[in-house]
Amino acid sequence: MNIMTAEQFRAEKNSLSDATVNNAKLDKTVLDIIQNVRESGDAALFHYTEKFDGVQLGQLTVSQEEFLEAEETVSDTFMTALEQARENIAAFHENQKEKSWFTNRADGVMLGQQVNPLEKAGIYVPGGKAAYPSTVLMNVIPAKLAGVGKICITTPPGPDGKISPEVLVAAKLAGVDKVYKLGGAQAIAALAYGTESIEKVAKIVGPGNAFVARAKKWVYGDVAIDMIAGPSEICVVADETAQPEFAAADLLSQAEHDEQARSICITTNRVLAEKISESVSSQTGQLERKAIIEKSLEANGKIIIADTLSEAFDVVNEIAPEHLQLMIENPAEKLGTIQNAGAIFLGNYAPEPLGDYFAGPNHTLPTSGTAVFSSPLGVYDFVKKSSIIQYSRQALQEASDSIITLANAEGLTAHANSILIRRDVNDA
Amino acid sequence: MNIMTAEQFRAEKNSLSDATVNNAKLDKTVLDIIQNVRESGDAALFHYTEKFDGVQLGQLTVSQEEFLEAEETVSDTFMTALEQARENIAAFHENQKEKSWFTNRADGVMLGQQVNPLEKAGIYVPGGKAAYPSTVLMNVIPAKLAGVGKICITTPPGPDGKISPEVLVAAKLAGVDKVYKLGGAQAIAALAYGTESIEKVAKIVGPGNAFVARAKKWVYGDVAIDMIAGPSEICVVADETAQPEFAAADLLSQAEHDEQARSICITTNRVLAEKISESVSSQTGQLERKAIIEKSLEANGKIIIADTLSEAFDVVNEIAPEHLQLMIENPAEKLGTIQNAGAIFLGNYAPEPLGDYFAGPNHTLPTSGTAVFSSPLGVYDFVKKSSIIQYSRQALQEASDSIITLANAEGLTAHANSILIRRDVNDA
Repeated sequence: MNIMTAEQFRAEKNSLSDATVNNAKLDKTVLDIIQNVRESGDAALFHYTEKFDGVQLGQLTVSQEEFLEAEETVSDTFMTALEQARENIAAFHENQKEKSWFTNRADGVMLGQQVNPLEKAGIYVPGGKAAYPSTVLMNVIPAKLAGVGKICITTPPGPDGKISPEVLVAAKLAGVDKVYKLGGAQAIAALAYGTESIEKVAKIVGPGNAFVARAKKWVYGDVAIDMIAGPSEICVVADETAQPEFAAADLLSQAEHDEQARSICITTNRVLAEKISESVSSQTGQLERKAIIEKSLEANGKIIIADTLSEAFDVVNEIAPEHLQLMIENPAEKLGTIQNAGAIFLGNYAPEPLGDYFAGPNHTLPTSGTAVFSSPLGVYDFVKKSSIIQYSRQALQEASDSIITLANAEGLTAHANSILIRRDVNDA
Repeated sequence: MNIMTAEQFRAEKNSLSDATVNNAKLDKTVLDIIQNVRESGDAALFHYTEKFDGVQLGQLTVSQEEFLEAEETVSDTFMTALEQARENIAAFHENQKEKSWFTNRADGVMLGQQVNPLEKAGIYVPGGKAAYPSTVLMNVIPAKLAGVGKICITTPPGPDGKISPEVLVAAKLAGVDKVYKLGGAQAIAALAYGTESIEKVAKIVGPGNAFVARAKKWVYGDVAIDMIAGPSEICVVADETAQPEFAAADLLSQAEHDEQARSICITTNRVLAEKISESVSSQTGQLERKAIIEKSLEANGKIIIADTLSEAFDVVNEIAPEHLQLMIENPAEKLGTIQNAGAIFLGNYAPEPLGDYFAGPNHTLPTSGTAVFSSPLGVYDFVKKSSIIQYSRQALQEASDSIITLANAEGLTAHANSILIRRDVNDA
């Protein structure tokens, strides 16, 4: 791996930084798809599924028989692991449930905040060549705990027109209402605006390819979305207490995702940096996804030498990594220095894959530096709030001068009138 | 006002419904502005301010002298009202503060969620002809309570190159760090990407015109935004206990905002409907903003006759109004039936302007039906979360089979390797 100083890294990072605002070519394709789905509904969905997934479907919805078939296909070992993961994910997210609250005053003023679940949520699960049952659990469980009324999944079918059995059993285990055989921008359009077969939802969540991400940006505002996911990253901060082979294995686990994935290690110790780099090289050879890993590390793999641990944390906060591993002494003591990170893994025995699959916290995390302003997916993504205001006649009377002053200052005299009319009318 | 049945309203609503996804002409203008600001920085900002606001500025930042001048200009009555409003807003939002939390298990597993404030927030405040000091308080106070490090405001200058003194004193009272004389899409671009004078922020909030709203949609993803605000609405549900003149005054207070504003009343009582309609007519004549009100009511003012209160609530949930007034008997008992509303006002003495200026809950609310999936602005808008995961060697050992099974099921063998290497290495 490429070893560099923090200064070199910063110079490179700044020259690389680019915004997502402009993407005219992709926009044209994606907008055409959205427009066609809005105009032609299911017909457009069947058309695009044939075009992009290479399969002519009879219906979009996964049937009861297909669910039963899936259950017979998957192994007991897989089901046990899935059930344990579900338990851990549910236990963690249970802590995120929010309560409605109220405050009361003696003068008859009641203020509060009511929390309601979204009525319908749609979850995109990538498919085609690969299957991601973990994506199903991580997205469905918080929605379920929030109390969402209807939860559906869309996922692209394989060339045989089927959905992976692992995804289907995970959907059933998590309590999904419907699974649609549908991928790409057309799936996002269908969830956002509805078709004959697919109900419009309040929010669309889940990862996807560039078309899915761009379609989510376009429909945002007409429907809520979780985030626009970009390439993902790991940042490992290591000191003398870090096991170099562990750090190397974790950098490699990120690199195998795709060629855009970014694996970054930061250390104050040049000897450790060399050891990690060597271990990366020696482990890579034995890994199945060697070709992807090599391209990813070549483009985006870096080991940064920081002068001090404090400089290391500065670099972390500038990167705002999706995954941050603190393989350092007393890592919990350093949490206060971390401003920007999706998930923080502490010590030698909390590798990223533990969080991806099992520990409980969500694996849908802010990517590409968006941890500066966003959070892991959670129960809070599937609720919304309403403010509550009740005043007594007396309390409004006492507030009326101030409200009228402020309304008049903004030139909104009908606002002032709404207060005045209550002061002047004698209905006691 | 136009009186109709719930059925007639639904038919009209469906035929009117339109998505925001496509807006090619506006997009071209807005994207040009964003691109120019990214390329030319401050120079582009001065250029657009001359072009759109008709003023050549010497500098973008409001000076200390201008703040002092503003303090001498505003009246004591105004300051007292503003200070009371600030107190109420702060007291309400104090309840929204979130704490970091952790759970610990005997086997060395620690999981948790760390809450951090955003480092920088930018607030757009509409300006030009009008001044909105209430917008300043409602947007700055939750950011301040969240602990945001730097808070700036951008607001378009008047033709004299100045910002309204009411806005400036509100900014100072709320604790803003900087105020920029800058409006439109160029202000959004500057906050999103930074220029020589203006620091890039993590999140942009606040209302604005069509250019501002569209620019926010475009920069979304590179920076967080609160929402894309559209025309706003009030929905008054009234039964025999409602004072018709009060209901009329409140519908009018919404209608004066702009010609797109929507004022809707729902009642089960036709006699009451007639009375409210008559009172609307008679009050309108005495109001300053009569011309706007008449156009708004003509286009979007409706009184809907529902067969039952239950049907009235169904219509409310379909509209998902920004402001909902329940002018009915025992309104608090009906809160459980309200799924979708930005703010809910209970009884005859909680009119919308009370919430706009004074009571405490935020007046930045989801508009145009987006209360289906979004919430009032709050302290939660200015924080983000990081998940925390710590495992002991033993706990990871026990989880390892399951994690490896799940990783292999997804074909991510380097993920499995990261777990395997920890199981096989003997470092005890």
